[in-house]
Amino acid sequence: MFETIAGILDWIGIAVFATTGALVASRKQMDIFGFSLLGTVTGIGGGTVRDLVLGNLPVFWVREPAYVIVCVLLSVLVFFTAHIPESRYRLLLWLDALGLALFAVVGAGMGLAADAGPVVAVVMGVITATFGGIIRDVLGGESPVILRREIYVTAALVAAVVFVGAIAVGLPREGAVIGGVLCGFAVRGAALHWGWSLPAYRARPGRVPED
Amino acid sequence: MFETIAGILDWIGIAVFATTGALVASRKQMDIFGFSLLGTVTGIGGGTVRDLVLGNLPVFWVREPAYVIVCVLLSVLVFFTAHIPESRYRLLLWLDALGLALFAVVGAGMGLAADAGPVVAVVMGVITATFGGIIRDVLGGESPVILRREIYVTAALVAAVVFVGAIAVGLPREGAVIGGVLCGFAVRGAALHWGWSLPAYRARPGRVPED
Amino acid sequence: MFETIAGILDWIGIAVFATTGALVASRKQMDIFGFSLLGTVTGIGGGTVRDLVLGNLPVFWVREPAYVIVCVLLSVLVFFTAHIPESRYRLLLWLDALGLALFAVVGAGMGLAADAGPVVAVVMGVITATFGGIIRDVLGGESPVILRREIYVTAALVAAVVFVGAIAVGLPREGAVIGGVLCGFAVRGAALHWGWSLPAYRARPGRVPED
Repeated sequence: MFETIAGILDWIGIAVFATTGALVASRKQMDIFGFSLLGTVTGIGGGTVRDLVLGNLPVFWVREPAYVIVCVLLSVLVFFTAHIPESRYRLLLWLDALGLALFAVVGAGMGLAADAGPVVAVVMGVITATFGGIIRDVLGGESPVILRREIYVTAALVAAVVFVGAIAVGLPREGAVIGGVLCGFAVRGAALHWGWSLPAYRARPGRVPED
Repeated sequence: MFETIAGILDWIGIAVFATTGALVASRKQMDIFGFSLLGTVTGIGGGTVRDLVLGNLPVFWVREPAYVIVCVLLSVLVFFTAHIPESRYRLLLWLDALGLALFAVVGAGMGLAADAGPVVAVVMGVITATFGGIIRDVLGGESPVILRREIYVTAALVAAVVFVGAIAVGLPREGAVIGGVLCGFAVRGAALHWGWSLPAYRARPGRVPED
Repeated sequence: MFETIAGILDWIGIAVFATTGALVASRKQMDIFGFSLLGTVTGIGGGTVRDLVLGNLPVFWVREPAYVIVCVLLSVLVFFTAHIPESRYRLLLWLDALGLALFAVVGAGMGLAADAGPVVAVVMGVITATFGGIIRDVLGGESPVILRREIYVTAALVAAVVFVGAIAVGLPREGAVIGGVLCGFAVRGAALHWGWSLPAYRARPGRVPED
């Protein structure tokens, strides 16, 4: 039962991130195979980093190619439909928020399954959640979403901490998963909707270094 | 015989990519050790990603340091000769095209050798072929070549699909390798020469997100 | 005794790089969790790449979470104190120089411990030393420090070569470690202080490619 829920959420997260990768490709006016590469790398990127550092090799999508096929199909779908939403960037941010919450919990769960202890499990959740988007933004030449002012890393952290904490106090794993995802998505969604941000470091911004 | 051909093509691909890395270093006016680092990382980058996700560890250049030595020597050679070609960027693009075709086939062959099935083999070919250049462009502060308008990812895909398809229908492996490389290089070369591109997503380019 | 010294230097290197990551976060006015992520990824980044290519999996910080905790605590500390130094960028460069020398030696030592031969050990040292900073600059949207004109990669190379050479001629390992770190830091520090640079490739800088 738990494996089923975690597996489904993992699939949703991968599909959602693949869609954000394809949306970035649309912003850059790439062709259909560029969409497929950027969508696929974004969808599987976070989980690939997670599997690498945990030593789960070969990584998940080598063992189960269906992940790759779904990412490619979704990218192609976005290629033909990206003109429909009114603001692709807004859609991208909201899907990214959903993927962020899902991957934070799934990644933390993988960390726990590897007997890595709660701290590493939380870090694994945050890294899984953020690295897909980082790879997407670096490859797509976008300003990395982690640099945006609103709450972002914090939401991934909330999702992972709620999940790991709920497991630690003995709640059922299904509840822990759902609670973590909902809390993380709520925090990031609220930040997007109301422009929430934590107090930023504000003394002085960095100047561009003289060369 | 097949191992010999694949091994030779792998060497050529690494040498060619190392040269493109050193050419980027020349565009950025780096010193001789900057050339060596960027050349080496570019030469071995795609294969390193491939070995990591397949779990072939330690990666190939730890097992066989000669790869690193060749990359360093080529980088030094470029440091002293990069003023000779009329357009370094044009040379860079053509060498990149050759490396792209070679690595797509070699990477796909490694995927097949790992019993990963045809889909993963093709993806492995595309990732091996594109990630060396991606790492080079990100480290060198260049606009990533995958974002250029002409056919790029498509050429890697053609090379990998022709190779995997030829193996699947039972052609001799030497022929599959050579056919894949020639088709991939022809497609990318034609795109460079005549400015071919696939229909791009064109509804609207992305705006710079308001901060 | 040697393990103790190498272990202490590894800790110092990680702490120093984590601090530079948090300083970049302060230049970008990130919030406290953004500081923590960028500090942690920078602190553990170089060693993670090293462990991955050597196949030391799971990577070191999964086996020993204390590394992550220290990186997070230092990042939080920087969040509250980054206004104190007169020039954060100058501090960042000097700490980066120290981390560079430390990681070059520790990375090369790991390469030797994996029986990888002297060439791979030196390359491992250079990659460990430079990749933490590369990941930091790419994620933080800074111009990568390896592109700066002064001696940088060279200093990492000096540290790794002095260490590996000293081991090869039979000097005691403690002396080799300390000699490597001092030489590397001296070279990079002198370059920062006096603006030293090696002869750069100067024929023509690259033009921005027409699109």
